[in-house]
Amino acid sequence: MNWLVILAGGRGERFWPLSRTARPKQFLRLLGPRSLLQETADRVAPLIDRAHTLVVTGEAYAPLVDEQLPGCWVLGEPVGRNTAASIAWAAAAIRERDPDALLAVLPSDHAVEDPVGFRGVLAAAMASAQRRRRMTLLGVRPTRPETGFGYIEAEAPAAGEPVGVPVAAFVEKPSRERAEAMVASGRFYWNAGMFILPLQEVWSALARWLPDTLAAVSTAPDDFGERFRALEPVSFDVGILERATAVDVLPLDVGWDDVGSFQAVARLLAGRAPQRVAWDRVHDVTVIGDDGPLIAGIGLSHLVVVRTPDAVLILPPEESQAVRALVHQLQETEEGARLT
Amino acid sequence: MNWLVILAGGRGERFWPLSRTARPKQFLRLLGPRSLLQETADRVAPLIDRAHTLVVTGEAYAPLVDEQLPGCWVLGEPVGRNTAASIAWAAAAIRERDPDALLAVLPSDHAVEDPVGFRGVLAAAMASAQRRRRMTLLGVRPTRPETGFGYIEAEAPAAGEPVGVPVAAFVEKPSRERAEAMVASGRFYWNAGMFILPLQEVWSALARWLPDTLAAVSTAPDDFGERFRALEPVSFDVGILERATAVDVLPLDVGWDDVGSFQAVARLLAGRAPQRVAWDRVHDVTVIGDDGPLIAGIGLSHLVVVRTPDAVLILPPEESQAVRALVHQLQETEEGARLT
Repeated sequence: MNWLVILAGGRGERFWPLSRTARPKQFLRLLGPRSLLQETADRVAPLIDRAHTLVVTGEAYAPLVDEQLPGCWVLGEPVGRNTAASIAWAAAAIRERDPDALLAVLPSDHAVEDPVGFRGVLAAAMASAQRRRRMTLLGVRPTRPETGFGYIEAEAPAAGEPVGVPVAAFVEKPSRERAEAMVASGRFYWNAGMFILPLQEVWSALARWLPDTLAAVSTAPDDFGERFRALEPVSFDVGILERATAVDVLPLDVGWDDVGSFQAVARLLAGRAPQRVAWDRVHDVTVIGDDGPLIAGIGLSHLVVVRTPDAVLILPPEESQAVRALVHQLQETEEGARLT
Repeated sequence: MNWLVILAGGRGERFWPLSRTARPKQFLRLLGPRSLLQETADRVAPLIDRAHTLVVTGEAYAPLVDEQLPGCWVLGEPVGRNTAASIAWAAAAIRERDPDALLAVLPSDHAVEDPVGFRGVLAAAMASAQRRRRMTLLGVRPTRPETGFGYIEAEAPAAGEPVGVPVAAFVEKPSRERAEAMVASGRFYWNAGMFILPLQEVWSALARWLPDTLAAVSTAPDDFGERFRALEPVSFDVGILERATAVDVLPLDVGWDDVGSFQAVARLLAGRAPQRVAWDRVHDVTVIGDDGPLIAGIGLSHLVVVRTPDAVLILPPEESQAVRALVHQLQETEEGARLT
């Protein structure tokens, strides 16, 4: 059977005041009436139903997942130990029911402009992974020489047919120059953390490269918490994919965005009229957040206004990277800490 | 006896979203922990106690005055008919108790930087008005060629001694050129609507120039409302002062401000650190309003943010004159109307 595994462990501070410790980014309705987590499940639903959807998240967020995706299977981690541990736990849980499963592992907090196109590539990647018995990545075809992402190098440019091409190498966040060269070559893709994993293949890889992790997630419930906590945090990319030799990549070209900051949200919302505002000569101002006070503006341009009932953040979009530092500053005061 | 008459009939829209139909400017804590109305009474309190303070306001606002200035005497007008009617009603009410009263009539929504200096000039003006038996104005010594105020021309520059100088003429809002010439002359003052009125003198003037008004405010309670409503609105300046021949002026030089807009409030608050904000590289941004969400800003400059629980207004200070138009635009929608 095909299974959807959504990794929803993020605790991001870049979306304050919308995101709070108790409600991180993936649970927010940043781009529409459904949260990013809900959009992720909705996007795959025609291929994989809710009964075969497993969400790995922090223990504290399990009730939020139940609320937003009723009927899915939730694993609540006692502590975050990065993606290798999350995927290993999901694999162990699914293996008990379905040892021949195929897992589509996706992040919970990204955006896709063209969900139909996305499903087409995902279905092709699942078929390819199944047939070739290889762990298979969806690689996002780069649209700019981005230096903030890791890249996947394919052995050859993608053929016309929708089948995986072997991965030659993984490249960490590159310099600008290197990024430009990679984009020009046509053989490099952004690593967006989307993995299609035949269970038997990922199980073997875990057994070989991360046996402690596999042992921890296979422990009886009584000892599980202690052993999970004791794990070294390691990403699935570093712990497994960069060591494995038989990994494929399939190109994805469907308007993907990692929704990394308010600037990205503003770009994705561009052109949509904000709700509950009163404007007079206001240009290029994006209001994010549908709860909280009406926002009125006169003679403003080039701003993002983030609205919640108890805090309103105002900034030019290009300052979005500074939100995290502001949150840390806030956490130093008693009132500020209550609001984060 | 000396009486303080505070005119608190304003319905200003320039301070939305702080001011609402149900709570206009004079009732707001714009500059500190006390409302402008309270500050006005506090400022005079060492000279005239609460038992001799009369506030003329709109009927609907009488409970607000009672709440903010407990123990004062409140006249609630059934409808606004400008300042001549308000002063006439106050004069009629006080005359029944104290026919020889001296009235200090002040607006309820201005600011004074130096309250001790203000009381000195007010005491001198009351003494002068009493001794000379003349209606006497406090004329604000102009600090800039303001074209938004009316001016009072004195017959001669003020002498060193604190005594009224006869008024030569009243000048409506002037051109820039005219304003500059007036400021240079040293004989012109801003008309800030502050009048010291011996009751007998103002009563005679009302009887002569506005007999209908005097008749209306002297009517028995049963007919009062109807007759008051029937009055033509006319200001005390136009209806009485510009016609009277024996009016004095005394210069006032105590950091007076009419608090005419958010720009003025921002100027008056300059240098005071805003409360309940989180700032990163924010310069020349004034937060007005102490209720509502925490305001956070990154990389902002030269803005006013007006905070209330259900609406937040953002604008450069020099756009303050456009607030009224925005309020009118808001009133055209159902939600907007609820918020005004």
